[in-house]
Amino acid sequence: GDERTARRTPTRLAREKTLTMETLNPQVKAVEYAVRGPIVIKAGEIERILQEGGKKPFTEVIKANIGDAHAMGQQPITFLRQVVALCTFPELLDSPSFPEDAKRRAQRILQGCGGRSLGSYSASQGVDCIRQDIAAYIEQRDQGVPSNWENIFLTTGASDGIVSILRLLVSGEGRARTGVMIPIPQYPLYSAAIAELGAVQVNYYLDEDNCWALDVHELHRAYQAAKQHCQPRVLCIINPGNPTGQVQSKKCIEDVLHFAYEENLFVMADEVYQENVYAPDCEFHSFKKVLYEMGPEYFNSVELASFHSTSKGYTGECGFRGGFMEIVNLDPEVKAQLVKLLSVRLCPPVAGQAAMDVIVNPPQPDEPSFAQFHKEKASVLGALADKAKLTEQILSAVPGIKCNPVQGAMYAFPQIFIPPRAVEEAKALGMQPDMLYCLRLLEETGICVVPGSGFGQREGTYHFRMTILPSPEKLKVLLEKVRDFHIKFLKENSALEEPQCRVQA
Amino acid sequence: GDERTARRTPTRLAREKTLTMETLNPQVKAVEYAVRGPIVIKAGEIERILQEGGKKPFTEVIKANIGDAHAMGQQPITFLRQVVALCTFPELLDSPSFPEDAKRRAQRILQGCGGRSLGSYSASQGVDCIRQDIAAYIEQRDQGVPSNWENIFLTTGASDGIVSILRLLVSGEGRARTGVMIPIPQYPLYSAAIAELGAVQVNYYLDEDNCWALDVHELHRAYQAAKQHCQPRVLCIINPGNPTGQVQSKKCIEDVLHFAYEENLFVMADEVYQENVYAPDCEFHSFKKVLYEMGPEYFNSVELASFHSTSKGYTGECGFRGGFMEIVNLDPEVKAQLVKLLSVRLCPPVAGQAAMDVIVNPPQPDEPSFAQFHKEKASVLGALADKAKLTEQILSAVPGIKCNPVQGAMYAFPQIFIPPRAVEEAKALGMQPDMLYCLRLLEETGICVVPGSGFGQREGTYHFRMTILPSPEKLKVLLEKVRDFHIKFLKENSALEEPQCRVQA
Repeated sequence: GDERTARRTPTRLAREKTLTMETLNPQVKAVEYAVRGPIVIKAGEIERILQEGGKKPFTEVIKANIGDAHAMGQQPITFLRQVVALCTFPELLDSPSFPEDAKRRAQRILQGCGGRSLGSYSASQGVDCIRQDIAAYIEQRDQGVPSNWENIFLTTGASDGIVSILRLLVSGEGRARTGVMIPIPQYPLYSAAIAELGAVQVNYYLDEDNCWALDVHELHRAYQAAKQHCQPRVLCIINPGNPTGQVQSKKCIEDVLHFAYEENLFVMADEVYQENVYAPDCEFHSFKKVLYEMGPEYFNSVELASFHSTSKGYTGECGFRGGFMEIVNLDPEVKAQLVKLLSVRLCPPVAGQAAMDVIVNPPQPDEPSFAQFHKEKASVLGALADKAKLTEQILSAVPGIKCNPVQGAMYAFPQIFIPPRAVEEAKALGMQPDMLYCLRLLEETGICVVPGSGFGQREGTYHFRMTILPSPEKLKVLLEKVRDFHIKFLKENSALEEPQCRVQA
Repeated sequence: GDERTARRTPTRLAREKTLTMETLNPQVKAVEYAVRGPIVIKAGEIERILQEGGKKPFTEVIKANIGDAHAMGQQPITFLRQVVALCTFPELLDSPSFPEDAKRRAQRILQGCGGRSLGSYSASQGVDCIRQDIAAYIEQRDQGVPSNWENIFLTTGASDGIVSILRLLVSGEGRARTGVMIPIPQYPLYSAAIAELGAVQVNYYLDEDNCWALDVHELHRAYQAAKQHCQPRVLCIINPGNPTGQVQSKKCIEDVLHFAYEENLFVMADEVYQENVYAPDCEFHSFKKVLYEMGPEYFNSVELASFHSTSKGYTGECGFRGGFMEIVNLDPEVKAQLVKLLSVRLCPPVAGQAAMDVIVNPPQPDEPSFAQFHKEKASVLGALADKAKLTEQILSAVPGIKCNPVQGAMYAFPQIFIPPRAVEEAKALGMQPDMLYCLRLLEETGICVVPGSGFGQREGTYHFRMTILPSPEKLKVLLEKVRDFHIKFLKENSALEEPQCRVQA
């Protein structure tokens, strides 16, 4: 019986999967995101080995791959957390252990929420009164340049805003396809979104020899070259720079805006590090303010979106996924389309909106929380400035490493000399040379940094990105370990020539 | 001098905008999302008029357009908010006013967070211990069917998970383009995502005459018809139904899964209303559990993603944007691609993840918060069941309205008879007849519901979707106003024939 049944049942092949690497969306396949790429997956594996008692030449993995301040021990700003906790559990409004100014903020936010609850959907653009607070903050930041709260959109972190705007802008086929100009090196959200949307990535190179400055001649070159095969319509700028840490001068921003004006480009200004400026001779200038100062012909015409976030600055509240964008000169019909598009996802997380509100509406000098707030903020920003300096100093002194000053943001992006022998070895392994370098660094020291190839770099140059977020003590140890590793790496690969970083190609 | 300068300056045309309706991404243009569409924008305008002292034949706008429980006055579950507040402001862990079980939950969540802070990015898939709690919840829900926590992904609301999976699945050109089968009526997130991704929408119709049941013959018909012009690869199901409120029988789910197995379809089961079942003869069966019971040949092969959310159920925490998906039988390489894709957006909001954790790990009978938690939960679900009944009763009794039982979810989707004269009038205005109906309802009564055309319906039938979320008192008034409006609407449009809803086309 059994045998007969077995024979009667057709030998059916295993059912094929519907979704395989062959049928996967090819635009998804093309996406790369190094900040959480293979090196970070490897770091996770090593962490697990250590946890399970495995032996490594180090006792912990230090993740300097991602700008995640709290994970590196930075403490939250008390006032921000008080306000969000009050919004979350309004019974605390009766508690004497919360200051009055925090309670006032929470009550104001809750009044803007449906049913006075963080649990209601907000409008797709965000809570009205938070949008108004953001506009007031921008006017103050930009010394009186007007900001209309109806141009403010809350977002799920800055990434969400950036991708939303790119989604609007991609159109056309063949030579008419939208080209998006991005800096090289760039933050790989841009290349990832461009790949998934099937837009054309147009690279313009920052000037490493000139402290990663943006040279408008390079913008012209990149634009003209791209015109041959696509329609460049968008210009993305990251200021202060990620991964490069430079802070753009007002003159540079003017040149960029003039170029965008002439070439009819939509400007996307990633300004999430606007609070993170450390170099004494640098200052943050928003693209919006500079545009205003260029006169009404510019201010009333250039389409500009600027992005901000709760994740960086002195708050480092990445997990709340708060952020906003301000968009000026957007065609009103297109704005309605943007609202429609955002409404499909309903709204940004309301707790993140509340966190954003605290950042744009912090305690004032006459309020009870001011002293503590000010002290905490200054402490975080002071420590970051010290660590920016320390990082540059230690790395610059290493033979075969060249490190520009970390003027702002929270990363160093040093150039590393990789001896030809190691370059050959990497090629044989089908690997980028700086990936080989970073993997070795991880395996020998437990330090996790991201290869420069994940951000883009001039052909034949190699870099890595590391955050300056570990505590000063830990950062010093980390930098010394990087130094010792680098010297050993050079020796092992018997660098015959004097180690020498490349300069401008 | 002035004159000469003026003459020398070329009369420059105003600089063109880069982003206009002509250059906008056409796939964005094609997106529609009725739940926050024109009717809701109109409702907002009327609200503003009322606030500014304007006169209307009513004193408030009642928004029955969106499943936003807290906005309609539903109170948050105390225990959930306590845990999230403790996570947000851990100093409260020392406060005697918070119960021990809430503190234990918060401590456990914080231990899973980098730097023990909600402000750190989590892994792209979510916090490990929360994923483990979700897997345990699923095993319990499904009476022991195994769930592997590594198949669980936290998401930014269920919408985010649904769109992420669709992004993977869209590929091919022309007749090889991915077809996505969706119910009609559907929740318009599906049609919106399909339009933006440029996939092919394949409609299968639910059986209105049979309480919106899913008939597998209709799936076959839709599949075969679609095969002529695309490659159907995905089958979306919403159970309990949105906007239709039906709860699928186990037999129906088996038939659907058998069909998906035979036709090699990837199944997306939108199960966000799994806690919202009211009809005494109905029960929620998860697609995963039914798949398991069909035997290993099915359970080890059908690719299935199931979605859940903090926004619905008895918690109604929409603003936290919490949710998760469980994906079984996903190709391991594709899973790595999914993780890569999610990592570009870094992580879902961590406060939303914490809220999700409370839902899957609620107080147990031996814990101090159990009694209050249980009472609050039963009260919300009991009231919803009463309101589901009330809605069906009142609407069914109106001549020219046909309302199926609201077995689950939180919406009624009654069919409305629209007299030919009104249909003609709408056509002359370039408007869907049910849009005309809903606009009139809004203008005359202040009640905001969404036209059936925004969800899809059989040609020549008209519906609207309304939530059952207003308080019982308000809901009764609302339903009576709808009844009176409808009768008046019929009279004004001198319905000569007996008002009669269409049945199966």
